[in-house]
Amino acid sequence: MRIALIGTGNLATHLVKAFEKSNDIDCVQWVGRKTTPHLELSRTPYFTQFQKSIDTDVCLVAVSDDQITHVAHQLKDIDILVAHTAGAISTNALEPIIRKGVFYPLQSFLQNTIVNWDDIPICIEATNRSDEHLLKTLANSLSKQVHTITQSQRLHLHAAAVFANNFCNHLLGISQNLTEKSGLPFAILEPLIRETFERSFSQSTLSVQTGPAKRNDLKTQDKHLALLSEKEVELYRSLSQTIFNTHNT
Amino acid sequence: MRIALIGTGNLATHLVKAFEKSNDIDCVQWVGRKTTPHLELSRTPYFTQFQKSIDTDVCLVAVSDDQITHVAHQLKDIDILVAHTAGAISTNALEPIIRKGVFYPLQSFLQNTIVNWDDIPICIEATNRSDEHLLKTLANSLSKQVHTITQSQRLHLHAAAVFANNFCNHLLGISQNLTEKSGLPFAILEPLIRETFERSFSQSTLSVQTGPAKRNDLKTQDKHLALLSEKEVELYRSLSQTIFNTHNT
Repeated sequence: MRIALIGTGNLATHLVKAFEKSNDIDCVQWVGRKTTPHLELSRTPYFTQFQKSIDTDVCLVAVSDDQITHVAHQLKDIDILVAHTAGAISTNALEPIIRKGVFYPLQSFLQNTIVNWDDIPICIEATNRSDEHLLKTLANSLSKQVHTITQSQRLHLHAAAVFANNFCNHLLGISQNLTEKSGLPFAILEPLIRETFERSFSQSTLSVQTGPAKRNDLKTQDKHLALLSEKEVELYRSLSQTIFNTHNT
Repeated sequence: MRIALIGTGNLATHLVKAFEKSNDIDCVQWVGRKTTPHLELSRTPYFTQFQKSIDTDVCLVAVSDDQITHVAHQLKDIDILVAHTAGAISTNALEPIIRKGVFYPLQSFLQNTIVNWDDIPICIEATNRSDEHLLKTLANSLSKQVHTITQSQRLHLHAAAVFANNFCNHLLGISQNLTEKSGLPFAILEPLIRETFERSFSQSTLSVQTGPAKRNDLKTQDKHLALLSEKEVELYRSLSQTIFNTHNT
């Protein structure tokens, strides 16, 4: 399969790396605004504009949400399948493209990390059945977990990911601060954190909730609050209140 | 080592099970208010009152925080080491006991689960050096991770555990709800969740924070808010605000 990839951010770069390793996929053009591509990815032909003259099956648009429509307008005359990679953006954002789709990998991508594509769920959507099949073939060549989902499901997943990744990450940061402040290694919390996340895969978190917020233990909460910064205090109160309400109303 | 264990909650029950398997520790009396002990733990002698006549080296008080002082008063005449198991309670709560200590396992204990004590950090504290040594020996017979820490460190750890366990658990529950509501399996988020907590062990979460809150992407936030219940909306706003402030001030 011959792919065009538009974008030079973390996801785009990880996709180019994956395509360079793949036997099934040939990334025939990598397109970005930067005048020079990443040096270490020199095997993939890089351009600052989409090349209509290069035979291409699918064009992936891995740019920031607010650039998708702009890119689509630049591509308006092409008749290949164009899929964006965003979790919370409708395929309508790809207007005036006719053959529209979504190729959404459910993972948080950082620069300079090794990505194991095998395990990354890829959620796809397309406006017609044959394009869906095309995206599925592309996704299957990278990952063992490919899901055809609706726009509404994708948005729910994206919101769920914000809670599980962005928000939990922030709370783990406050944990890191607290252990650091007391001169202890964060590793001491590792078994507890592993248990927390592992439990969520096998049980309803509602049934395993514990702690001072659930049992309305205000004495303990006050001791914790005394250790926290102003903005952490607000967050602690807000989370404790919601947990209390969830389990006591 | 001859142990008395007071309490019949989750932690106490898991301790009795561990002691029954141990070659080094002999739980010579298990004391609780319930008139009958757990049937499957019948090897450990059970009483409804502490037995002064039974030779005992250490007494562990694994009861709820607000019962610790009550239990200590009942034990006031004994001259063995008495240690409670609480994260946010001072050894002073054990007054009028003379030889006071803390034996705090840093894990969340549920009923009817298998506990791998080897990996559970046990944090100890004692008012004198020989008792500290006694608690260390006891803790080492259960776990490979034993830490002598101060009361302030213990309280910081306890607060850090609330963020990492109680609060993250609640957020994972909202994730579960969102995936369930959209008819998708929560397992689809497993690779992202694993990545989230694995990263926290090797990197500062501050440096790996991503998402609409950090970049103040209000369009995406509005789409998420539309999927949430009233109390989830409040929490989402509070977390997003704190993340934004952390990364943009």
